[in-house]
Amino acid sequence: MKKIINTPEGFIPEMLEGIYVAHPKELRPAGNDLHCLVSVRSHPGKVGIATGGGSGHLPLFLGYVGEGMLDGCAIGDVFQSPSAEQMLAVTQTIHQGAGVLYIYGNYNGDIFNFDMAAEMADFEHDIRVETVVVGEDVASPAPLEGEDNKRRGVAGIFFVYKCAGAVARQGKSLDEVKRIALKACDNVRSLGVALSSCTVPKVGRPSFEIAEDEMEIGMGIHGEPGIRRGKLKNADAIVDEMVASILKDLPYQKGDEVAVLVNGLGATPLEELYVMFRRVKQILDESGISIHRSYVGEFATSMEMAGASISLLRLDEELKALVDAPADTPFFKQL
Amino acid sequence: MKKIINTPEGFIPEMLEGIYVAHPKELRPAGNDLHCLVSVRSHPGKVGIATGGGSGHLPLFLGYVGEGMLDGCAIGDVFQSPSAEQMLAVTQTIHQGAGVLYIYGNYNGDIFNFDMAAEMADFEHDIRVETVVVGEDVASPAPLEGEDNKRRGVAGIFFVYKCAGAVARQGKSLDEVKRIALKACDNVRSLGVALSSCTVPKVGRPSFEIAEDEMEIGMGIHGEPGIRRGKLKNADAIVDEMVASILKDLPYQKGDEVAVLVNGLGATPLEELYVMFRRVKQILDESGISIHRSYVGEFATSMEMAGASISLLRLDEELKALVDAPADTPFFKQL
Repeated sequence: MKKIINTPEGFIPEMLEGIYVAHPKELRPAGNDLHCLVSVRSHPGKVGIATGGGSGHLPLFLGYVGEGMLDGCAIGDVFQSPSAEQMLAVTQTIHQGAGVLYIYGNYNGDIFNFDMAAEMADFEHDIRVETVVVGEDVASPAPLEGEDNKRRGVAGIFFVYKCAGAVARQGKSLDEVKRIALKACDNVRSLGVALSSCTVPKVGRPSFEIAEDEMEIGMGIHGEPGIRRGKLKNADAIVDEMVASILKDLPYQKGDEVAVLVNGLGATPLEELYVMFRRVKQILDESGISIHRSYVGEFATSMEMAGASISLLRLDEELKALVDAPADTPFFKQL
Repeated sequence: MKKIINTPEGFIPEMLEGIYVAHPKELRPAGNDLHCLVSVRSHPGKVGIATGGGSGHLPLFLGYVGEGMLDGCAIGDVFQSPSAEQMLAVTQTIHQGAGVLYIYGNYNGDIFNFDMAAEMADFEHDIRVETVVVGEDVASPAPLEGEDNKRRGVAGIFFVYKCAGAVARQGKSLDEVKRIALKACDNVRSLGVALSSCTVPKVGRPSFEIAEDEMEIGMGIHGEPGIRRGKLKNADAIVDEMVASILKDLPYQKGDEVAVLVNGLGATPLEELYVMFRRVKQILDESGISIHRSYVGEFATSMEMAGASISLLRLDEELKALVDAPADTPFFKQL
């Protein structure tokens, strides 16, 4: 395990200490627990937006706490859900009289804890909480009518944060912010490819084995099984396979306008992400789908995992304006 | 070689294609050569600032072309200097009547080509060019009085771009912009640590070997030899050694104010960079040096190399205002 850390136990607390001293004008802890981060800026009467999840995915989740995005975030240990109490502490701190929307990825531990936090917020503190669970990874099948969505939440959650955060900033109601978050969920799809594993410090060995000439399409950001494992192909073939799976899922169609996110999982150089983006653009051009806005970089990682994901968000005029709205967070700034 | 590319030959041209289609409102090629990037925005009468160097370091160099930073950049193949003709094409395109300042890292190939470009710009096109070569890596000895600086330019060049770009944006003269760039050079120092090698695609094997339990303090961003190789230490011990070397070099002293950059070399997770930053802050606190502004992330990489560098810029009121000035480039935005 080749990492620049002190101890596996200290990894996340020390990372969080670093976050606070690097961003003192943007982030503060809610109370004494460093795992409960909130924006230093508050807006009376604004709907609060909270997220949460395990560590190891920076800039997800905490990096998007700031103007035009999120108000707070509860963070667990590496790949571990934070507790209900931690999410409750965030909720109480960011509540500005208009209720709180939870937006987080579709993982059982998070759902269990955040549902409990929402109940406690309601019963014990009279704070109305609504929840939007993001599960947009097309590596697993779409839910049938009436079924629960079993899809994982991956990098596409960035777009849900962006749209919901922008509409909350306009002073809209909790119902309206939730409607927008759900609308973004309905229109976003993602798929990833992994080339190497990461290592959870407390485990001390790679989460999975993958041969030097292999890749896995659809692997999750914690190393969950993907769609298929095979020989590493060239960039265009990888992107062709990924984009084809995404396009047919919604489906995205000729005439659609989209926002695109090509996201690095950690160890993959930015140069390779741009080679991939170039191919995404070619495919969308050929498909008659136009790109309204593009994001290329590390938005949701899995520590030192090599690989990338592609997310598309289908836009109408309403979502377009929200995607275009300014944002100012430690890890994402849009003018 | 596990990379998401098509061919080693196509790697950089395809990366550049991706850059242009991802940032059509920010960057355009100067003429037909994709390796010559300029900002789409020009400001008549402003001093132009050009940089250049080999590929493989994104967001360095081209990512800082934009408002408040650079006007153009000539990019070579991986770790290869662009040609004099390419730098000349950038120079001619960004010249707005007030001359052009070259700011680039201290590498022989770049110096040879960019000196030639500067001469051609002057003799053939009557464009005055001044040059500031950045060499701030304390891994090699400081030049003696009257000697050439043999130190490499690494991530600290970001601060030189930032300060020079901000003063050029104020409409100051070429001499004044050069004075500020030199002043930033005088006050910036960096040192890196490498944990793993990158692989140049056309070479197809790692640039150097390093054992699973080893690190190398002071290694350059192309794998140039460092100060010492030894067993991998814990984060605090690594940072202590790096910061001690940096502090004693200028030297930085009690009462100084600095800007700090903790830079990832490519494969090192952002979480680890924050663990390092936390320790940098502790050391500076103990040394009576205060942090005016901090940057943590990937600012100058070596593709998939694991490791990090630390840069400090000593500030006075003049440099502080320039570091704080807004910037809007594809890879760096400051509000």
